[in-house]
Amino acid sequence: MQDPFVDRLAGRLQTLKSSAIREILKLASQPDVTSFAGGLPAPELFPMDEIRAAADRVLQRVGHRALQYGPTDGVPELRALIAERASAADPGAPAVDPEQVLVTTGSQQALDLLAKALIDPGDPIVTENPSYLGALQAFRLFQASYWTVGMDDEGAIPSELEPLLARSPKFAYILPTFQNPTGRTMGQARREEVASLFEKYQVPLVEDDPYGSLTFGPRSGSTLRALAPDVTLHLGTFSKILAPGLRLGWVIGPKEWVARLSQVKQSADLHTSSLSQYVALEVMRSGAIEGHIERICASYHERCSAMLQSIEEHFPAGSKWTVPTGGMFVWVELPAGVDTAALLPRVVAEEKVAYVSGAPFHPNGGGENTMRLNFTHASPEVVREGVARLGKALTRALDTVAV
Amino acid sequence: MQDPFVDRLAGRLQTLKSSAIREILKLASQPDVTSFAGGLPAPELFPMDEIRAAADRVLQRVGHRALQYGPTDGVPELRALIAERASAADPGAPAVDPEQVLVTTGSQQALDLLAKALIDPGDPIVTENPSYLGALQAFRLFQASYWTVGMDDEGAIPSELEPLLARSPKFAYILPTFQNPTGRTMGQARREEVASLFEKYQVPLVEDDPYGSLTFGPRSGSTLRALAPDVTLHLGTFSKILAPGLRLGWVIGPKEWVARLSQVKQSADLHTSSLSQYVALEVMRSGAIEGHIERICASYHERCSAMLQSIEEHFPAGSKWTVPTGGMFVWVELPAGVDTAALLPRVVAEEKVAYVSGAPFHPNGGGENTMRLNFTHASPEVVREGVARLGKALTRALDTVAV
Repeated sequence: MQDPFVDRLAGRLQTLKSSAIREILKLASQPDVTSFAGGLPAPELFPMDEIRAAADRVLQRVGHRALQYGPTDGVPELRALIAERASAADPGAPAVDPEQVLVTTGSQQALDLLAKALIDPGDPIVTENPSYLGALQAFRLFQASYWTVGMDDEGAIPSELEPLLARSPKFAYILPTFQNPTGRTMGQARREEVASLFEKYQVPLVEDDPYGSLTFGPRSGSTLRALAPDVTLHLGTFSKILAPGLRLGWVIGPKEWVARLSQVKQSADLHTSSLSQYVALEVMRSGAIEGHIERICASYHERCSAMLQSIEEHFPAGSKWTVPTGGMFVWVELPAGVDTAALLPRVVAEEKVAYVSGAPFHPNGGGENTMRLNFTHASPEVVREGVARLGKALTRALDTVAV
Repeated sequence: MQDPFVDRLAGRLQTLKSSAIREILKLASQPDVTSFAGGLPAPELFPMDEIRAAADRVLQRVGHRALQYGPTDGVPELRALIAERASAADPGAPAVDPEQVLVTTGSQQALDLLAKALIDPGDPIVTENPSYLGALQAFRLFQASYWTVGMDDEGAIPSELEPLLARSPKFAYILPTFQNPTGRTMGQARREEVASLFEKYQVPLVEDDPYGSLTFGPRSGSTLRALAPDVTLHLGTFSKILAPGLRLGWVIGPKEWVARLSQVKQSADLHTSSLSQYVALEVMRSGAIEGHIERICASYHERCSAMLQSIEEHFPAGSKWTVPTGGMFVWVELPAGVDTAALLPRVVAEEKVAYVSGAPFHPNGGGENTMRLNFTHASPEVVREGVARLGKALTRALDTVAV
């Protein structure tokens, strides 16, 4: 080696692999490829005029604050607004106090802060199997180990979850609504059962909820936070309802927990971009956001339907897939023997279509015959056509396997 | 305890103390207090019109990119511009390649990424004594230990540095220009001597350079990066030359080193705010920045002179202070026996003046009779008057000690 930096890497970096997400973003950025790989919102649906007007008003009226250092916890008015929206969403639960809110540099930062605050090398974390890759990587960097919970159509299976909680893991990381990567959603009864387990065993529950607002029908149920407020950290984001480029997310939880995360955040980046915070605050206050969310939900619903229909028509016999009622992803399980990771370079080259292979979403291995497909980033026509090309490639590959 | 979160805190949080910086920002925000505590730029000097116009152009022309997810390394055009500026600043050194640049969420994030990448519990880090509190905290969170180097008027003393580098620390963290907290600056000969030591011992040198552009006279000398490019990570920021609220900094270093930090950054926040990056890029391209830097330097020079003159007139006999030629801070050493931390609450209450006590800047203790004074945030009149009140309080306190 003989490189003074590489020779000195900390233990936690020894196992760090080249990142799958980075590769996803690279694939997604090739202009001639239809990419179902990323988790990108549709850019043509950004509320551009509202954001532009909001930025202008912010810089005109409170520019000296939007450009200056600010508090680590976040802009007070934005914390208050996030608390208010969370309280309104779960009217049965105790109201959220602004001091329970920490503004983060995207939800990803919340995952990093959690890992830093809680994970010692080897500590067990409970996750669904499969689970969000970005979270698995953030926790793995701090040398977590994983205890995984099997899923049915409603997500994590309580009878598998309970014995793991009984063994007192550091925390559990759960996506109850339009899960990444499977698109699965817990019904209300499941939510209540899961929440009560966390209360029973007093294990911190990290509820990642980036997609909750992206629903095609009525709301899916209470947040787990509302059902078990004393043991839950709820992670939310403006990335899916407004714009990911702002890098703006939040955590809601017990005050003491949030204060600890804030303390860790201070070393991480002092605070989140004041400009991003004030722009989001201004757009939210303008009232433009609710109409915007309705529009993107309608559009995503259409794109999802196009994807499901095209999968039905073109994917090889023996394939199974989820039918999401919101969010951004469809999850496909292909017949055994198909290795989606090995297949990807060929599909990109020959059919100009990209997806994410499912294996990296499985914390302890497996899932080689699975893939995640994003339906939000392209128009229904492009989705339909791309899925058809993908189906063709998969069918070809499967024929090869069979032979 | 019996709190499922607090009971589970990772080892690295066990020693985390309530943050001095947080307390500083709180003190600084009381409206009736003249605060010399923070490191805040003067908000009335923000190039508000340029930033507002830039934001509007960005959202009009490249809004879909400024609001979308982007590459972890940063917006390519911004990396290129940072590389170009760095190359122009040190024309004798090899040109900086854009791939040597990582955009960070403020310089603070660079410190966090470094700590994550390199520090195992107990690892020794070399710092000047005193050194920047935010860095000490970021490294301490990863359980670093500190080997400190004494300073003279030109900063770190090479004869103290060499035996420490010979013992192969994880890295050294040095602020060669208008150091935080002392305001001291290395001359060219000192820079060359220091850089050559790092080359000799092949120890990674982290050169933190937030204030380099804030010079009252001719430039102080080469960057350490230019003198020892193969072993140096140079940290820069837009916080002091443009606006801290954007949370925008950068690292320049060997490609392999930067790639490792980028890998770690991905888990930290995916990428830095695209909006902030495009706005900064647009302001830089407009050419408005050089004139802006000249204006703030002239203004800060005037404020610094006002502070030094008022210290001279009003501080108790036996006080010593630095005479900075740029940057944001004057460092004061009071006669032994004065405890600036113990004194602070009384000075704030009675004289409505705040400063930062110097002890927390000393990694291994000491410095109870020191303080850091910021001169950039208030007008010369307010600076003069506030320092006079502070001098009065200190003289009173010293009389008490003497009795």
